[in-house]
Amino acid sequence: MNTKNLESLNFLFYPRNVAIFGASEKLWYMVKGFEEHNFNKNKLYLINPSKGEIFGQKCYKSIDDIPDETIDLLILAVGRDRLAQSLKELIEQKDIKTIHIFTAGTGESDEKGVIVENELFNIFNNENLSTRAIGPNCMGVYSVKGHLAYEPFLPTEPGNISLVFQSGDLHSQTIRIGARRHNLKYSKGVSIGNCIDLQISDFLQYYNNDDDTDLIMVYFEGINAHYPNEGKELLKTLRAMKKPVLFMHGGKTSRAQKAALTHTGSISTNQKIWKAIYKQTPIVEVPTSLDDMIDYAFIFYKVINRYRDSKNDNYRINYPKGKNVLLILWSGGFGIIDTNMLTELGMNIPYFEGEILEKLRKIYPIKIGSLSNPLDIPWVSSSETYFKIAKVASSENVDLVIIETDMWEEEPHFDRYYNNILAIRKHVESLDKIFILILPEYPARHRQKYYKKLIDDDFIVYPSVRRAAKAFLALYDYGKKIENLNKK
Amino acid sequence: MNTKNLESLNFLFYPRNVAIFGASEKLWYMVKGFEEHNFNKNKLYLINPSKGEIFGQKCYKSIDDIPDETIDLLILAVGRDRLAQSLKELIEQKDIKTIHIFTAGTGESDEKGVIVENELFNIFNNENLSTRAIGPNCMGVYSVKGHLAYEPFLPTEPGNISLVFQSGDLHSQTIRIGARRHNLKYSKGVSIGNCIDLQISDFLQYYNNDDDTDLIMVYFEGINAHYPNEGKELLKTLRAMKKPVLFMHGGKTSRAQKAALTHTGSISTNQKIWKAIYKQTPIVEVPTSLDDMIDYAFIFYKVINRYRDSKNDNYRINYPKGKNVLLILWSGGFGIIDTNMLTELGMNIPYFEGEILEKLRKIYPIKIGSLSNPLDIPWVSSSETYFKIAKVASSENVDLVIIETDMWEEEPHFDRYYNNILAIRKHVESLDKIFILILPEYPARHRQKYYKKLIDDDFIVYPSVRRAAKAFLALYDYGKKIENLNKK
Repeated sequence: MNTKNLESLNFLFYPRNVAIFGASEKLWYMVKGFEEHNFNKNKLYLINPSKGEIFGQKCYKSIDDIPDETIDLLILAVGRDRLAQSLKELIEQKDIKTIHIFTAGTGESDEKGVIVENELFNIFNNENLSTRAIGPNCMGVYSVKGHLAYEPFLPTEPGNISLVFQSGDLHSQTIRIGARRHNLKYSKGVSIGNCIDLQISDFLQYYNNDDDTDLIMVYFEGINAHYPNEGKELLKTLRAMKKPVLFMHGGKTSRAQKAALTHTGSISTNQKIWKAIYKQTPIVEVPTSLDDMIDYAFIFYKVINRYRDSKNDNYRINYPKGKNVLLILWSGGFGIIDTNMLTELGMNIPYFEGEILEKLRKIYPIKIGSLSNPLDIPWVSSSETYFKIAKVASSENVDLVIIETDMWEEEPHFDRYYNNILAIRKHVESLDKIFILILPEYPARHRQKYYKKLIDDDFIVYPSVRRAAKAFLALYDYGKKIENLNKK
Repeated sequence: MNTKNLESLNFLFYPRNVAIFGASEKLWYMVKGFEEHNFNKNKLYLINPSKGEIFGQKCYKSIDDIPDETIDLLILAVGRDRLAQSLKELIEQKDIKTIHIFTAGTGESDEKGVIVENELFNIFNNENLSTRAIGPNCMGVYSVKGHLAYEPFLPTEPGNISLVFQSGDLHSQTIRIGARRHNLKYSKGVSIGNCIDLQISDFLQYYNNDDDTDLIMVYFEGINAHYPNEGKELLKTLRAMKKPVLFMHGGKTSRAQKAALTHTGSISTNQKIWKAIYKQTPIVEVPTSLDDMIDYAFIFYKVINRYRDSKNDNYRINYPKGKNVLLILWSGGFGIIDTNMLTELGMNIPYFEGEILEKLRKIYPIKIGSLSNPLDIPWVSSSETYFKIAKVASSENVDLVIIETDMWEEEPHFDRYYNNILAIRKHVESLDKIFILILPEYPARHRQKYYKKLIDDDFIVYPSVRRAAKAFLALYDYGKKIENLNKK
């Protein structure tokens, strides 16, 4: 990326001051967002000529009144009729590093909106202008270490996931659900809207070189018609990505493309081209579903951080080498439907017979249930036998170990069961394999509490074997792909 | 079905007395199940020669000691080594109408188990024997009006869903989750196991003529090798079904078939044959996933009971005529990904333009969002406008109306919002269309409470548009199929 962009994006994510032009009580969530994230209150300037105060905070009449010489981030929240004119004046009046054009009703709206967007394009299509912008029609910036959030419900703990999304609401929901459901932690995020200046490729390049980013999530809707070269730029950028990029394309079907036109005014490109792009670049295609996006992020996040924590600098992630799964259950019927579903998804369930089966039978001589994988071993999960079986079975040629159990609610059953699970996970991970626990979303009494404990204790937990398997396969496919791309 | 079977199944589902042979404290859940369902305590006989009492209840030494002349249902819970011999003796000693062979470790287990199962087959393969049996290797019978349940957690409220499952655990979980998640109510259920005597087709025939059954769920794993004709019988039976049958096949892939052998010892039949069967018979193929099964059951149950309640006798269900959907959302990004996903699933989202768009714009002149379907109209769901828009839009050529909203938590917002939703549903259903509300499973504060309210108020609610659409399509496809089959 050019140094101009790099510098601009630093201003955007770590602004020393922020001004909101067109501030009003309607934007309470933005102001509250900055507050929750401990942004320096003295460096948040509200501007509105017709107001003296907002939320008890001083309101400036014009940008000229602001004492600072430069504004690192200006949030522009005026009506679309005044948008282009305001923008021109503001740039002339002050040295503004970056602008978040919040205003909607532009290219995605009607003919008049398209005209406004053309005017915006003409302003930024100027080599002498160093000011860079995101939007219009976007929610803005989230940066944990930059103390920045456009709404108060985005988490404040720092992590290593960064996002660039062409939908503000999907951006917020992804961050919030990922945090609440799986304790995902983030570095940066940006809702980028109609992309009249800065593009998705700019942010990907920035994240690719950002030490605080290890995993990237993208929601792409299409390309702004003013930037016909962005397709090529994006492809080049995606090819060069050194970190996993989870990429969701919102405008795959032609009917969705029609809808995207009224959302961000974007033009989606041909799906055949995208299929080729997915093949050629080290990115992960995510089905158009928020659950899938968050499910995938969860396993990548856990695996990345497992290696990062254990190996410190210059860590290397060992992606799964195969698709062999060991399934340990408490019910035969579930074993059958899971076997069926996993096979349909393309996974292998090695059938245990001969020597290994004898070994398992010696540990646990049962007549009921099965030890042939899936292991259908009810009632035993709180006894020592359970760990012994799982240890021997998981040492076989398997890449993924899934345990699906009903939970023991009463002590001391629960403690013994939980210690078993912990010991099995430790063993499985010591073999460089993936361990996943399934906790179905049945409305069970203690589920919520137990789920929280598992998440806090760093388990990978999914509500169904299907979702676990899909996420695992995304991880496996990514590993294979970068292996193949590196060979070339 | 032959009258012998019909009579036997009446004994099985409405036994005047039940005897448990081989009763012990281990079977507490069974005894507790009868108790919870108010089965006449004086007519539940426990038999065990080596015990005086179990749970403070008298224990008989032998079946001869039981005062009743006939036993309607005998539960046989002895070790497999004594199984065949016990069975022979019991049948000779007493007039037993039906037997639930609980014992496992037979055909699904090892060579010795196969021998035991052969012995059982020889006993029942006798035209002079009127006693009929389910099992071995099964959990047994659930019959709400028969006051029968093999465990205490099966609901006691009567309804009109009946099940026949080749897995006891899937049977219990399906019933329990359906009840807790969606208030589904049941008539009868049977976990049938290895099918050494009574077959799935017997129960289907019974349910087909049972006035208390309007919807049937089947979990099929395969056919017992002793009954090579059951395939033909099943096909004939399925062809004749007058009620929706949700059919899940556990042994679709060859790997799952291998697993099924160790579960119920069943032989699965070729998938090509099954594909043809699904085409030719009025049944619904359910993917091998419990969530799908319960999701499908939910929409069928709601629609069936809507017509049953409103039209009383000789009701006729109007299945959806088309696959056109109106989607009302509060977020543009979700609109795009939902449009994409729905289109991929084969649904149509009529694009609103021209006259209808003008009409909607007159009601709600917005610049932000969209009225072109999906309707992306945030912030308005608690105002009168919302109902007005939805009323006009749902009167268009659509078969399904889906609303996905964030919930309003505070009064009076919530009340106004909720009244809107109620009024929209009423309008949509008055047009003979389907109304579905989406309540995502995000861990929101009041979600649980709100979800319960919706379910109690008879709404069809799913956690995602995808799940709603898949269930709707099952309903639509079923309607089309019976229409076509009736034409022939």
